[in-house]
Amino acid sequence: MSGENSSTPTSITLPWASDFHCHLRQGAMMETVTPMGRPHGPAMPNLTPPLTTTQMAVDYGKKLQKLAPNVHFILTLYLNPALTPAEIPRLQQPVYPSGVTTNSDWGAMQEANMVLCLHGECPSDAAKGICILNAEERFLATLRELHQAFPKLRIVLEHATTQAAVEHTVGCTITAHHLFIIIDDWAGHPHHFCKPVAKFPHDRDALRERPSALFPWLDSAPHPRSAKQGEKPAAGVFTTPILIPLMATLFDKMECLDKLEGFISTYGRQFYGLPEPIDGTITLVRLPLAVPAAYAVSGSASDGETVVPFMASTEIGWSIAKTE
Amino acid sequence: MSGENSSTPTSITLPWASDFHCHLRQGAMMETVTPMGRPHGPAMPNLTPPLTTTQMAVDYGKKLQKLAPNVHFILTLYLNPALTPAEIPRLQQPVYPSGVTTNSDWGAMQEANMVLCLHGECPSDAAKGICILNAEERFLATLRELHQAFPKLRIVLEHATTQAAVEHTVGCTITAHHLFIIIDDWAGHPHHFCKPVAKFPHDRDALRERPSALFPWLDSAPHPRSAKQGEKPAAGVFTTPILIPLMATLFDKMECLDKLEGFISTYGRQFYGLPEPIDGTITLVRLPLAVPAAYAVSGSASDGETVVPFMASTEIGWSIAKTE
Repeated sequence: MSGENSSTPTSITLPWASDFHCHLRQGAMMETVTPMGRPHGPAMPNLTPPLTTTQMAVDYGKKLQKLAPNVHFILTLYLNPALTPAEIPRLQQPVYPSGVTTNSDWGAMQEANMVLCLHGECPSDAAKGICILNAEERFLATLRELHQAFPKLRIVLEHATTQAAVEHTVGCTITAHHLFIIIDDWAGHPHHFCKPVAKFPHDRDALRERPSALFPWLDSAPHPRSAKQGEKPAAGVFTTPILIPLMATLFDKMECLDKLEGFISTYGRQFYGLPEPIDGTITLVRLPLAVPAAYAVSGSASDGETVVPFMASTEIGWSIAKTE
Repeated sequence: MSGENSSTPTSITLPWASDFHCHLRQGAMMETVTPMGRPHGPAMPNLTPPLTTTQMAVDYGKKLQKLAPNVHFILTLYLNPALTPAEIPRLQQPVYPSGVTTNSDWGAMQEANMVLCLHGECPSDAAKGICILNAEERFLATLRELHQAFPKLRIVLEHATTQAAVEHTVGCTITAHHLFIIIDDWAGHPHHFCKPVAKFPHDRDALRERPSALFPWLDSAPHPRSAKQGEKPAAGVFTTPILIPLMATLFDKMECLDKLEGFISTYGRQFYGLPEPIDGTITLVRLPLAVPAAYAVSGSASDGETVVPFMASTEIGWSIAKTE
């Protein structure tokens, strides 16, 4: 270690990160982004059609594995009426609720020691005063009830964005860009627009204060520029290629680089019951990284088919020196 | 009056509306939008360059008058260091503060019985917890201080968006689309993005409950599609061509059509001290109006140069039958 600031390292070597919420998409976008981040963790089932059976998940996993042979993917399923309590113990995947679920489902999941991933927002309903700003907070009561009824069910409140959520839940994930932006940053900036939306400054502060209670999900949700700059921009922020340097930059600024390994790897693996990382290391250095304005998507030279990353055309403070 | 619902009229004739905050732009956009709404009221000074002298305002007014000869325009100025207290009594325009202003300015304005138009938002400052969601509410203390120091100064809090603002100020204007949309509607919809941003359901409800205490500003802020669907969409919602039918539709739904004339004409004219309307009437009928997907801007056939209106490609409940 050396550098102008002798109290903090200018390089750091960590096990590879484990991302617990990856949108790896399909087709050309999948081919572009899957090899980029070397993610290890749940790949999201919101495809066309959505992943609702084990066989569909297995088939999707084979495609991903071909694109990134050294990565350990966890396939997820939408919990749906076809997945009866009797079938749940046979599932190998974490599940996302979709549509109607019952207490029998939750009980069967608890028995099977499964992970329940929740997009924890109430549907917007103006008559009840619910909008995208308070939808997460309004959901917390339901989350508490579920936790009390099934205390051993491993529940992840995905992509927590509010002070209320991180202060009142046990297991939650956090999306990289929510550690950086607030509502001002996505208003009038479609490439920063994602759901749940980033909220108040105090919410961002609360997320930043609790890295040890959270594990990140990449939630890198790439969309082509044409889908982000249309009449109704798609929700999602693309962070895959810069995620680890971005986290190092933030943790360095917050003077808690010692917590980086836990945040990007250990806590999540422990929660999911995954083995110790076996697939190499990543060495980061405190050297500026120029984030490109956009990435080309495989198979297209069209500007509309590029993907604009978070922090596009800026410099972040840390770079990847080496991966082994 | 006739129609299926005998308790409310199916047609209504009113004096022409007076809009108290019109963005009439420059060049081709000015040529397109100025004749559209037949607005009567202050035309905004945020041009390139901004209107900072009486001569500039007079010259701009001549261009507008040529495009809409029968309209009574009120030109506004940015209050700026060149406008000293000694010069203020000579001004004929309402003013918008820009940069540093002093108590002498306010005092001189009060003496001259001028109208002070305020964009009432504190600048966002994350360190102080200020963001676009609470910027208006945070400004109210300043507004109260100003009002207490200069109780006779006619102050308009422009484009109020919050329950706090309409409950704690005397004179404010309201933007048409803020009576319809909340944050959910502009998140992921650049043609609904405007500043101040639309906020919570309870804020919209509060605006709707107080039509008699407010007067509308059209604040129709047109931008070409290319500026709305880029990487950083411009702020502004375009309502000019549908404003009056839109208001009739809402007031009909709220069962207060009897308040429509006050809202779109009388209250604002009284506040500004304008003469009774002399320029004709508008007759509205309860018949569906199909709002086009976009309007072409003069001098261009390019799709990027069209303007997408509020309620594009939908039907609203009332139409203009006749203007005289």
